[in-house]
Amino acid sequence: MMKLQAQWITGFTDGEGCFHIGISKNSQMKIGYQILPEFTIVQHKRDIKLLYNLKAYFNCGVVRKNKGTGNVYSYRVRDRTSLMSIIIPFFEKHSLKTMKKVDFQKFRRVLLLMGNDEHLTLEGLNKIRDIRQQKYLISQDRVRPQ
Amino acid sequence: MMKLQAQWITGFTDGEGCFHIGISKNSQMKIGYQILPEFTIVQHKRDIKLLYNLKAYFNCGVVRKNKGTGNVYSYRVRDRTSLMSIIIPFFEKHSLKTMKKVDFQKFRRVLLLMGNDEHLTLEGLNKIRDIRQQKYLISQDRVRPQ
Repeated sequence: MMKLQAQWITGFTDGEGCFHIGISKNSQMKIGYQILPEFTIVQHKRDIKLLYNLKAYFNCGVVRKNKGTGNVYSYRVRDRTSLMSIIIPFFEKHSLKTMKKVDFQKFRRVLLLMGNDEHLTLEGLNKIRDIRQQKYLISQDRVRPQ
Repeated sequence: MMKLQAQWITGFTDGEGCFHIGISKNSQMKIGYQILPEFTIVQHKRDIKLLYNLKAYFNCGVVRKNKGTGNVYSYRVRDRTSLMSIIIPFFEKHSLKTMKKVDFQKFRRVLLLMGNDEHLTLEGLNKIRDIRQQKYLISQDRVRPQ
């Protein structure tokens, strides 16, 4: 096992990480849509060990081959409990340095809304859509890109 | 100014850094070719401040707009003295975790050859070409991708 340090992971995430808020149609949901927040780090197969090391560090998520690709793998966390209790607190503690910090803040805010089940209402869905479209997050989080 | 930490820089370089050994035709050179080692980190304009922070951290290199692009900038170190006295020792001390480590070791070896002026001979040029083509560096550096 590689020994990863929090600052290394933060720097690597600033480069390669993705905080994605998926919105997909789902007829099983009352409002017709499902919100799917996802933290991913994608790497070529040659660095698959590193992805497993990230998984071990965070003690959550999975490593998967990307569909339709021969040599691309992802470390991926979708489980909301893991996102809320592990991933979000990690990047709250270890601030991202690039503008990806804004993506993280938007991601965090959506997860907080989801914690209140707001994503199950049409109003909440629209809120989430608004957050996704914002260029910067101000007000509540008091986070401004520097 | 942002406070950057060595481990953050290492992680970010594992994601975004590039250790490039350019070989270009140059009729001014006796052997007809010039070797141009270059360390670069490329970012969208929105993170240009970060590039200046890297420049300040290393106290060498330049930040430049990439030619032919509207919004892409690079932090770049080409000066051999800076590469040898600052960049190489930094990544010797703070090991890269991805296979980019191999690129770094090849880069380092080429710079060591250049320190002996080997790049000015045809034999040295061929050595450098060989190093560039190697998938892994073994022997001398005792560095193996893990």
